[in-house]
Amino acid sequence: MKAVVLLSGGLDSSTVLYQAKALGLECYAISFDYQQRHRRELESAKAIASSAGVVEHQQVSFDLRAWGGSALTDSKIDLPQDRSVTEMAENIPVTYVPARNTIFLSFALAYAETIGADCVYIGVNALDYSGYPDCRPDYIEAMQSVFRLGTKQGREGIAIAIVTPLINLRKTEIIQLGNQLGVPWEKTWSCYAGEDLACGVCDSCQLRLAAFAQLGIPDPLSYAQSVI
Amino acid sequence: MKAVVLLSGGLDSSTVLYQAKALGLECYAISFDYQQRHRRELESAKAIASSAGVVEHQQVSFDLRAWGGSALTDSKIDLPQDRSVTEMAENIPVTYVPARNTIFLSFALAYAETIGADCVYIGVNALDYSGYPDCRPDYIEAMQSVFRLGTKQGREGIAIAIVTPLINLRKTEIIQLGNQLGVPWEKTWSCYAGEDLACGVCDSCQLRLAAFAQLGIPDPLSYAQSVI
Repeated sequence: MKAVVLLSGGLDSSTVLYQAKALGLECYAISFDYQQRHRRELESAKAIASSAGVVEHQQVSFDLRAWGGSALTDSKIDLPQDRSVTEMAENIPVTYVPARNTIFLSFALAYAETIGADCVYIGVNALDYSGYPDCRPDYIEAMQSVFRLGTKQGREGIAIAIVTPLINLRKTEIIQLGNQLGVPWEKTWSCYAGEDLACGVCDSCQLRLAAFAQLGIPDPLSYAQSVI
Repeated sequence: MKAVVLLSGGLDSSTVLYQAKALGLECYAISFDYQQRHRRELESAKAIASSAGVVEHQQVSFDLRAWGGSALTDSKIDLPQDRSVTEMAENIPVTYVPARNTIFLSFALAYAETIGADCVYIGVNALDYSGYPDCRPDYIEAMQSVFRLGTKQGREGIAIAIVTPLINLRKTEIIQLGNQLGVPWEKTWSCYAGEDLACGVCDSCQLRLAAFAQLGIPDPLSYAQSVI
């Protein structure tokens, strides 16, 4: 069985890749350079893909800065800092990139159909940082219909399945799962700021640090500052 | 009202753009350079966008040759030639590009949400050349659910609408509509081969030539050869 795995190089997608590997799937990773502020995550994606031993790792490049609309693609919009996990959950955050997962899943679908893959793995999570609309189960179901109806393979009755192993897990549970699977956390990257060291104060660093701290497990990354 | 219009520079998308303009919508065109064999259609898209007087014309670039899988993105796969319209309708043709409309609509969605557009116009057509799975009404409905559930705007109850004015029209009816709207056919481009002159024998040229001939209207383009 072949799986296409969406790989950003963060905790979640790295855990998903290691899980797909553990299940014995032939994994084809796909990453996206959309000129995101934290493009350096792509180096982590490469390192993780290589550690996990994927068959192939595709990187698709396009530029979402053309129309901006997100703190991750428009440097004029400041990244939120020092927010509690509760504050993050209250609204759709400015780090929301319009239609990002739809774009990512579309390319994954194209890749999957071309290589004859059976499924697409994506590390979306509807619990922590639940503000993103394109991480929720009903959205994934809608994309599943698109996978079925929008492809030759789906029309012939064998739709490519979207698999979301983390959708109902807390960040702490994801780290526990990743630990069991042997994910090399030191090779992952979560920070939105994209500097040499992880900032420690953006939403993504905060969530990561809070989860490691809650579990009493040391996070092997170095941080410029840490408020946890 | 603002509309994002998917514009390839062909007959169908040009007609759709002129229709959206005629309805008084502020039009934002979007075109895609995916390293297609017939990239020269992008020059036509520019000319049509300019003639129609769009507010903005975005061109998004990425490379679908990385994994191929279609005669339009893999020069090793020959374009079908000299097929009748009936033959074209029989199977999903080798010019099918896996998940292409899903990718295009995803970017259109991202653009539409960022600029606060009300709708996305796409010139899909389920009658002639009906082999493409991602041109059919049930597929468009599935994408509409994605537009509703995968965006901030949709979650707030104001989903961006996908509008498909040509979905049930024959190619001849599209040309009649375009004529009424004043589409400058001489600026459009349909040929898949992407040479200086339209080839006249690929599926796309054949469909176009057959429709113009059936209507007794001259096609203003020059063709390398014409079998109609």
